[in-house]
Amino acid sequence: KREKNHLSFTSMYLLPAKNGEEYTMQFLLEVVDILTNYVRKTFDRSTKVLDFHHPHQLLEGMEGFNLELCDQPESLEQILVDCRDTLKYGVRTGHPRFFNQLSSGLDIIGLAGEWLTSTANTNMFTYEIAPVFVLMEQLTLKKMREIIGWPNGEGDGIFSPGGAISNMYSVMVARYKHYPEVKIKGMAAAPRLVLFTSEHSHYSIKKASAVLGFGTENLILLKTDERGRVIPADLEAKVIDAKQKGFMPVFVNATAGSTVYGAFDPINEIADICEKYNIWLHVDGAWGGGLLMSRKHRHKLNGVERANSVTWNPHKMMGVPLQCSAILVREKGLLQGCNSMCAGYLFQPDKQYDVTYDTGDKAIQCGRHVDIFKFWLMWKSKGTIGFEKHIDRCLELSEYLYHKIKNREGYEMVFQGEPQHTNVCFWYIPPSLRLLPDGEEKRQRLHKVAPKIKAMMMECGTTMVGYQPQGDKVNFFRMVVSNPAVTRSDIDFLIDEIERLGQDL
Amino acid sequence: KREKNHLSFTSMYLLPAKNGEEYTMQFLLEVVDILTNYVRKTFDRSTKVLDFHHPHQLLEGMEGFNLELCDQPESLEQILVDCRDTLKYGVRTGHPRFFNQLSSGLDIIGLAGEWLTSTANTNMFTYEIAPVFVLMEQLTLKKMREIIGWPNGEGDGIFSPGGAISNMYSVMVARYKHYPEVKIKGMAAAPRLVLFTSEHSHYSIKKASAVLGFGTENLILLKTDERGRVIPADLEAKVIDAKQKGFMPVFVNATAGSTVYGAFDPINEIADICEKYNIWLHVDGAWGGGLLMSRKHRHKLNGVERANSVTWNPHKMMGVPLQCSAILVREKGLLQGCNSMCAGYLFQPDKQYDVTYDTGDKAIQCGRHVDIFKFWLMWKSKGTIGFEKHIDRCLELSEYLYHKIKNREGYEMVFQGEPQHTNVCFWYIPPSLRLLPDGEEKRQRLHKVAPKIKAMMMECGTTMVGYQPQGDKVNFFRMVVSNPAVTRSDIDFLIDEIERLGQDL
Repeated sequence: KREKNHLSFTSMYLLPAKNGEEYTMQFLLEVVDILTNYVRKTFDRSTKVLDFHHPHQLLEGMEGFNLELCDQPESLEQILVDCRDTLKYGVRTGHPRFFNQLSSGLDIIGLAGEWLTSTANTNMFTYEIAPVFVLMEQLTLKKMREIIGWPNGEGDGIFSPGGAISNMYSVMVARYKHYPEVKIKGMAAAPRLVLFTSEHSHYSIKKASAVLGFGTENLILLKTDERGRVIPADLEAKVIDAKQKGFMPVFVNATAGSTVYGAFDPINEIADICEKYNIWLHVDGAWGGGLLMSRKHRHKLNGVERANSVTWNPHKMMGVPLQCSAILVREKGLLQGCNSMCAGYLFQPDKQYDVTYDTGDKAIQCGRHVDIFKFWLMWKSKGTIGFEKHIDRCLELSEYLYHKIKNREGYEMVFQGEPQHTNVCFWYIPPSLRLLPDGEEKRQRLHKVAPKIKAMMMECGTTMVGYQPQGDKVNFFRMVVSNPAVTRSDIDFLIDEIERLGQDL
Repeated sequence: KREKNHLSFTSMYLLPAKNGEEYTMQFLLEVVDILTNYVRKTFDRSTKVLDFHHPHQLLEGMEGFNLELCDQPESLEQILVDCRDTLKYGVRTGHPRFFNQLSSGLDIIGLAGEWLTSTANTNMFTYEIAPVFVLMEQLTLKKMREIIGWPNGEGDGIFSPGGAISNMYSVMVARYKHYPEVKIKGMAAAPRLVLFTSEHSHYSIKKASAVLGFGTENLILLKTDERGRVIPADLEAKVIDAKQKGFMPVFVNATAGSTVYGAFDPINEIADICEKYNIWLHVDGAWGGGLLMSRKHRHKLNGVERANSVTWNPHKMMGVPLQCSAILVREKGLLQGCNSMCAGYLFQPDKQYDVTYDTGDKAIQCGRHVDIFKFWLMWKSKGTIGFEKHIDRCLELSEYLYHKIKNREGYEMVFQGEPQHTNVCFWYIPPSLRLLPDGEEKRQRLHKVAPKIKAMMMECGTTMVGYQPQGDKVNFFRMVVSNPAVTRSDIDFLIDEIERLGQDL
């Protein structure tokens, strides 16, 4: 007879083991207990955002938590301890004072959706094994295209493993549209192709140019105004210059919500140039695409309906759990044409259902994770208006921060004017630096302030916010809000904390 | 005062709403109840594998289940109904009679790991926000490299969103090793590069050659023996031929466990040729890599330690939930060199911890899903020996099937001899076809048998198994086993079912 405490056994006794049902349920409920406790604490401001340890500390092993893998199995009791410790030494990205990343928050419906997705454990490549998810993806992509403004939501699209891959798709599809023979003959079949994107754009455009065989030197960087928005005249001048050199301009990326400044490139003006010179226009709305859900803010993406393709990551501004990124393409058939390899063993033409629902041949992946369900479920539960409220609220909080610090002693804004997105970029200048004359010494000392404050924040575990240099600007803080749990008091807390930690630097 | 039944409200009342804790816990536990019921039924053979509906049926809306997204929110009650329906109309990939894909099964520890991963909702790009997961990935990759046989487990690697992307990494890294200038100057900086892979290899190698700008015609297909294994002499002949034409052989893929036949290419003989001609050797062990965990079967990958890179998907043969795929590279620094773009806003050099732990600059992605935890947790709970047992058991079941049908009336094996992997490929020949003379009519009729039986299986919902044509061979069944829940009785059931459904065709 087995003992009462099943968890002293190993996973051998779980399903599919004979009579494993009771053990399995007991184990899963214990795990859920750990997880729901974590959820509860995530929203509790008296809990730390993180309990920081250096890599060598975690590698040496914390009390009872050993990362090394062994030949022999561990008991389920130990597995539960490992789960608790994994969460304990991690970072609470859903905490109302975690501002470190564009993706933050812990949406309960989205979480439930992910739990269900894991339990269903299937693959998006065919309707055959993911009928419901494939249809949800199709309907949701159509809805997104309608919101972009493409007639009747026509076009194509796919969910990909993140914005970098979505952007890569856009470059691939642009190349296929202009030089379909590259698929078969390689880049040698095309003239020297050049791509354009702003100095402030996401580095994934550069990655794509390296990966796809264009070469990073064929990605031409565009100048921006002081708020980080592309200067259209610079684009046109560089297109003309490239053509004069005999290069072929093939792709322009306009950023809708840049990573650091939250800047929105002027899409309509860029679209005019793209149309004039017959260049593919991609809008990278990984971060800013969410604003399309807001009647108040969507004008920032005016002209997006003229794009040939759009990246839009619901896992950023819309609070969907990671990962959830869509690439949307205006012209139907290109994704398939570009990526199809017609693998007979997966995409049999003689199935009993309408195989146009199989998505695998559109993807650069074979297996593809189900990223749609959590998003679909959140949309159901919030409605379109729920996303709108969320977005308007986050932007209000950023305005609040902006107005709080723009004239506050010890702060300097990185660029002037109200932020376009939730990004608020600023320097905190400790008292010891305030009287220094502008110059290299002040610059060098200021450069070290944000990293020092950030390090102390992480040691204390009270809050997290990002910093970075940009161009010739020394390290500054980039505050962003995408978590619905954030309130004005959390913004106040961040400022207090920066001042508490930074005053003696 | 709010009503007792909280679930008649919308998600607005969940956390982070004030006093949302009770609602949240009630909702999450209701979800868990749905999920644990699903888990229980998954292992219950009296439950169907699927409840098949055509796309138009699901799109028209089943009773109470409407896939369309609306402006207004739905109640939590409806959300729970949606969850139940999503599972009801899906496919139970963990069911002991689901044999349709290389990935199957529902590992309880892996499932718990995924639930935790979703709850932690973080991103692999920096140690800063995923300290524990980043270290787990590092240790697990090292362990995998040790098992491959690279001295001290040295080298590099990363988890990617599936085998196709892992294989794409291998081609990129090979190109970077031989022609690093392509990163900056594009494919124009290299001579005409050619790649080699077998006719039986996974189509992702062909996808990579299209995506990366080589062109599919520069992927040279190698002949195989009748069991689907590369003929090394054909490789050498084609390498010499390519060189004579002035092309530059740069990459050879050897498949360890082909998708359809489960064939293992002779790695040592291929490695000899790659060394002789200085060509990058990649081993695609997406499907067969798991056999490295078995002392009995790892000899099938002899020579893998001579590979420059290896793809290995724990989400296939090792039963880890989707997605979990590793690309392993023998030489350190190449992944970083190939992919690094040094984005200052993400990978600040002036962080307080050792930033060599940040993984983002190795990846083609920016954000990267946490795929490691479930795998690490399964390894902890089973130990290395647990994976070994699982693999040995699956291969025994395939042997059982092979011996059961190889001389059975109405069956014909696609290739002779014991299967190398769990793949058993066979035709079922209905009585009406058995007396037909060999020839085109018989071929054409036989080609339709597997699709018809498969369609009926899906309509009945009793079991699922794959079929496909291969080369000049008409549609045949490909049976695979990777689910620990499968027993001999399930194999017997499959054969009975094929005969029941196929006897009158």
